[in-house]
Amino acid sequence: MLDTQYSQYIQHRIDQKTKPLGALGLLEKVAHQLALIQSQGQDTAVAHIELNRPSIIIFAGDHGIADEGVSIAPSAVTQQMVLNFLQGGAAINCFCTVNDIDITVVDTGILLPVETDNPMLISQRLGTRTENFAHQAAMMPDTVELGIELGQSLVSKMIRNGSNLIMFGEMGIGNTSSASAILSALANRTAQECVGLGTGINSAQFVRKKMVVEQGVARCKGLNPRDVLAQVGGYEIVQMIGGFLGAYQNRTPILVDGFIVSVAAYVATLIEPNCRDYMIFAHRSEEAGHKIILELLDAEPLLDLGLRLGEGTGAALAMPIIRAAVEFYNNMASFESAGVTV
Amino acid sequence: MLDTQYSQYIQHRIDQKTKPLGALGLLEKVAHQLALIQSQGQDTAVAHIELNRPSIIIFAGDHGIADEGVSIAPSAVTQQMVLNFLQGGAAINCFCTVNDIDITVVDTGILLPVETDNPMLISQRLGTRTENFAHQAAMMPDTVELGIELGQSLVSKMIRNGSNLIMFGEMGIGNTSSASAILSALANRTAQECVGLGTGINSAQFVRKKMVVEQGVARCKGLNPRDVLAQVGGYEIVQMIGGFLGAYQNRTPILVDGFIVSVAAYVATLIEPNCRDYMIFAHRSEEAGHKIILELLDAEPLLDLGLRLGEGTGAALAMPIIRAAVEFYNNMASFESAGVTV
Repeated sequence: MLDTQYSQYIQHRIDQKTKPLGALGLLEKVAHQLALIQSQGQDTAVAHIELNRPSIIIFAGDHGIADEGVSIAPSAVTQQMVLNFLQGGAAINCFCTVNDIDITVVDTGILLPVETDNPMLISQRLGTRTENFAHQAAMMPDTVELGIELGQSLVSKMIRNGSNLIMFGEMGIGNTSSASAILSALANRTAQECVGLGTGINSAQFVRKKMVVEQGVARCKGLNPRDVLAQVGGYEIVQMIGGFLGAYQNRTPILVDGFIVSVAAYVATLIEPNCRDYMIFAHRSEEAGHKIILELLDAEPLLDLGLRLGEGTGAALAMPIIRAAVEFYNNMASFESAGVTV
Repeated sequence: MLDTQYSQYIQHRIDQKTKPLGALGLLEKVAHQLALIQSQGQDTAVAHIELNRPSIIIFAGDHGIADEGVSIAPSAVTQQMVLNFLQGGAAINCFCTVNDIDITVVDTGILLPVETDNPMLISQRLGTRTENFAHQAAMMPDTVELGIELGQSLVSKMIRNGSNLIMFGEMGIGNTSSASAILSALANRTAQECVGLGTGINSAQFVRKKMVVEQGVARCKGLNPRDVLAQVGGYEIVQMIGGFLGAYQNRTPILVDGFIVSVAAYVATLIEPNCRDYMIFAHRSEEAGHKIILELLDAEPLLDLGLRLGEGTGAALAMPIIRAAVEFYNNMASFESAGVTV
């Protein structure tokens, strides 16, 4: 748990800025959280928040459940979108360009691997794609362990290389089905409550999606988080969970994207509850299940732009809010320094 | 009115980007609006939106109504905050720094003028401060006309100097009272509906604020917008209204900040309804009256960060969303160019 002995100084510093109390809303909460994280283990609370090389890792993986027709596109599109990321053509590339965010793409197990020497791409393949969880376990328990370790190591390495704010994105046809099933099983909610329209399926697909999620969840009764992941998880989700744990071990904040990344965040808190202290929620997803997670984690996202794309786009778009929060904490005048009477 | 003959091409261009239909939510609406504005008078719709020197003008003015004790701070603070803007210490300075926005500050009539040769400050004083509208007209009708002309000219000049996206901010102790009164009079709503807590007054001040707003509004029955401004307006609000009209004449979009700037926007649409086409709403204010304006103008703001500061902070914080929308419209790959199968 974060040592909150620094909170009083931090809040005082924020309250002395030339503005009415609380007038910067969510930005004040973000600044407080970041300052508190960076103050841990220091003699006094920090008066300056450091923000270095914000980086996004896009985890891509394919899902056997896609065979059930629960998505608007076939599994082949996962690889095509990975190529699009590498060529700089996707929405996430645009948003990282304007917001100065480093991108790394991880192949966690997409159906068709990409032949490339592009250094943006890291191969951490756990398989060709998961099994169809409507009928059998998505992966072996050992694969879950390996995926968590790989995600953890990668994030630790990025932090060693100088990033002190991490974001995750994901790409994987079928992955809202997997995310909904994980949430349903672990939060003990019905598939009805956890399944949404993904990137825009029709009503027949929606009915089918709920049905196959229920089939997978039926095998999860009483299982612990790791075993639920083996039953209905996805390679990219498992690696993101490891990533959250890695960020926690390095006391590094993560700016959490929408529904699927939030499911990974939620599972990480079940494994290590103190992870939560390092999470800032970027975007309110339109997926039904996201509301459940936000309530469970007592989180209020920064943005609500009606996105339903994934890729980490919500996190990338929230990055300037983080920079603004850091800037006001570091450099905004106090009543005293500006000669403003209260 | 905008010529919408270009809309079909613009929407097609957006829909061919490598993303599900509509998956970029509000960013798609912003891109469409900007592309449509920049296509006016062209042979074909633009495939590239230009964004040049985004600039904010902070209009500062003082209000006689402040004598009624309806604010958390005395009128002297307006000048102190203007000095803070000029020294780079305010929240708006921080947000303009991180988001690369030019700042100009306009003295429209603050109680104590600032002696400075700082080129950031432009003097367009309409008086020392407005009269106390609880008891008499805030200003003369001629002053309203002059203020509108000055705001109009200034914005036109900034556009000639190369800005093609304008934002307004405001500073003026007492100006939520004036804005609420204008809204109440022109939208035919009660003071109760239009008055909020400003930057954080207590409940006794809140009761008093509603009462004095009612007193001012009582003199506005049946008056046209200009005459309402003379009764209960503020110098900074009048100049912002002129600014909206100037932007409209130059076919230039304005990113509209919270409550007070939105009141100016609303009055501008009463004078020239086509102004609305050039407005993008940045931030949902916590002020009660803002909801009324958003409904009247059918507007959905980009951000909702719980700000209640003014200064144009909501607009400055929304600027990166505009840049992201422009970037995806200009540079995101299409299904065809990226080889993604739909």
